[in-house]
Amino acid sequence: MTDLEGQAQHVTRGAGIRAGQERGPGAPAGQRTIRRHNRGLVLSQIAAAPGQTRVQIAGATGLTRATISALVDDLIASNLVIERRPAPARGRPACPLHLNPDGPAAIGIEIKVDRTSACVLDLTGVVRDRRTIDVDNSASTPKAGLRRSCQLASALAASVRLPVAGIALAVPGLVSADGQVFETPNLPGWNGADLRRLLAGMTGRDSVTVDNEANLAALAERWYGIRSTDFIYVSGDVGVGGGVVFGGELFRGVRGFAGEIGHVQVDPAGPVCGCGNRGCLEQVAGKAALLQSAAAADEDELCRHARAGSRRALAALTRAAGALAVAVSAALNIADLPMVVLGGLYARLGEWLAEPLAAQLSLRVVSRAPVEVRVSDLGTEAAMIGAAGCVIRHILASAD
Amino acid sequence: MTDLEGQAQHVTRGAGIRAGQERGPGAPAGQRTIRRHNRGLVLSQIAAAPGQTRVQIAGATGLTRATISALVDDLIASNLVIERRPAPARGRPACPLHLNPDGPAAIGIEIKVDRTSACVLDLTGVVRDRRTIDVDNSASTPKAGLRRSCQLASALAASVRLPVAGIALAVPGLVSADGQVFETPNLPGWNGADLRRLLAGMTGRDSVTVDNEANLAALAERWYGIRSTDFIYVSGDVGVGGGVVFGGELFRGVRGFAGEIGHVQVDPAGPVCGCGNRGCLEQVAGKAALLQSAAAADEDELCRHARAGSRRALAALTRAAGALAVAVSAALNIADLPMVVLGGLYARLGEWLAEPLAAQLSLRVVSRAPVEVRVSDLGTEAAMIGAAGCVIRHILASAD
Repeated sequence: MTDLEGQAQHVTRGAGIRAGQERGPGAPAGQRTIRRHNRGLVLSQIAAAPGQTRVQIAGATGLTRATISALVDDLIASNLVIERRPAPARGRPACPLHLNPDGPAAIGIEIKVDRTSACVLDLTGVVRDRRTIDVDNSASTPKAGLRRSCQLASALAASVRLPVAGIALAVPGLVSADGQVFETPNLPGWNGADLRRLLAGMTGRDSVTVDNEANLAALAERWYGIRSTDFIYVSGDVGVGGGVVFGGELFRGVRGFAGEIGHVQVDPAGPVCGCGNRGCLEQVAGKAALLQSAAAADEDELCRHARAGSRRALAALTRAAGALAVAVSAALNIADLPMVVLGGLYARLGEWLAEPLAAQLSLRVVSRAPVEVRVSDLGTEAAMIGAAGCVIRHILASAD
Repeated sequence: MTDLEGQAQHVTRGAGIRAGQERGPGAPAGQRTIRRHNRGLVLSQIAAAPGQTRVQIAGATGLTRATISALVDDLIASNLVIERRPAPARGRPACPLHLNPDGPAAIGIEIKVDRTSACVLDLTGVVRDRRTIDVDNSASTPKAGLRRSCQLASALAASVRLPVAGIALAVPGLVSADGQVFETPNLPGWNGADLRRLLAGMTGRDSVTVDNEANLAALAERWYGIRSTDFIYVSGDVGVGGGVVFGGELFRGVRGFAGEIGHVQVDPAGPVCGCGNRGCLEQVAGKAALLQSAAAADEDELCRHARAGSRRALAALTRAAGALAVAVSAALNIADLPMVVLGGLYARLGEWLAEPLAAQLSLRVVSRAPVEVRVSDLGTEAAMIGAAGCVIRHILASAD
């Protein structure tokens, strides 16, 4: 994502390259590079502030109006940009430019232990359709699980009638920088499977994105949700996932495994975890532990009990907030981030978790620097939106 | 440090700017920029690989031999570079170039709770002299403490007879990005003091560097010690400090407070910490806890007991290694770093701590990605060397 992010940040006044400034070796290659750079620049400009006119974009990029017009015409012909009707005005009317909601779209899929979900995201970042099937992926082979995902994706693509430019997959496991899944503690049959190759084969696409669900959910928050540049995202489900966004980019660490807050130890006397340790956050504040200590059959019942003021449910939530505070404060003491975003099940339980978590963090973060606790609006859809978002960001960054 | 680091990394083949490539607005300013860039480039080249000849540097930088010669002559005249005698050879002899060990030097000072230390570091990274005085800084005002430090620095500077280009200070507290000390739990009288202004006033210098001791020690490891690009540094003393180096640079977080591993909770039932929480790493594996649980009066006695096989001392060290493993694995699960560097007291106890720590980490880091545990050679001098190193890096990066 680094490159894509970098591209988006190039949208600064006067960032356009004029032909005379090009330092490339041969003129034809140089011209192509310039054109590609400037197209990307104009597209990012339209994405960042929809509704600008050609004249405004010329002013913002430092490119000539003639260059802008040629590039915009190209982008319209490529189906990426549309011109809306201008507001009535005296003189020559100027049409506001927007990303084309009916242009290339992306499919994001999320594999969970007990269900598979998919969505279609359009160029403008709107989810155009979504579907979920209940299925026991932990009892499936990766091949069977992916085949079902592809069928779901095909059905979705047919329903929205948008050209699908790419597909990306979120999985509940540690994914290395080269797309190999290394550890899927909650989908043991999927350990080590080359999901990127399998999915590319099934979809007939050269390259597909496969990434950890919490990383993708954090990116969805960065691009379409909270939109902050620095935060730790923590999402509850069967496992507890995390993603760190720093300086506007996903912080992946050296090998791609950063953000694994679910396996920070919060209680040395706690229950044994799937990872082999004891008292990991996931064991103390994951879905199973929460439901059990609240004596609730499922999330709906937990919410009902909490809303009805059940002492047992509220005590379970307070305990979970305390465990979250231990792990999150460890992350914040080490990485100094000003914001925590609660996602997944924790977003749904935000009204009970956010306040005690914030109170505990103000005591546990040693710098005493303020920390804001936010509740995700993307909820359980964040990972698949982030997956599809990777495809959309790639289209916007590399349009040519 | 980001800029300085960046400068050093510019040392790649063909990184020199030739005059025709300069895009600056006016020729004179452009020429100065080019010259400055190229001087820095040549200097970094000599620093990175001492002993190169002018011809070799021309080859590595892509600059002409005439340009290199002019720049090297300048650097020699500025006292930054020296030419050594060439090895006997046929043909025209080429002189190997080195940083000048008798050129501008830096003074690094470290304020600890119970002593103040200072060293003189020369351009080549060699400590030319060092002194320590035992003094109760926690009972001093910042002004009195700094005045003593300055006297120590002056005595040192007089003894080595090198031109002192700058001075920098390491303190055991949280220092914000703008040099204000916010929290010095072990030096309560120093909380909130503007040490940068005070020290600048006492030394008559416009700007001085003041930073957290563990951050500076981590930088010393990066530049003069372990020299790896990605690691977490953890040092034991009265407090437990930490610094994260990622991609060759110190990771400071959003407000400058990253790396505070000493306040990661490792035992919810542990003793109350100066920060107000319970069971922080510092309380369980800091100097006081270690000496007490080993029934040793000081570090020397602890080492003697451990070497003699005292069960109590060895059990205390095993307990400390276990506590370190909880906090360090939290850091590694969140930041995915491949190396831990033990510093300060932990370096001295490395023969007992490193192995059990490595064994525990291999179980606690959920990605199962390998983690190397290294013991610092800089030991308790790391922070003052890092402080002085900031000055040296600045000289090397901005020579003009």
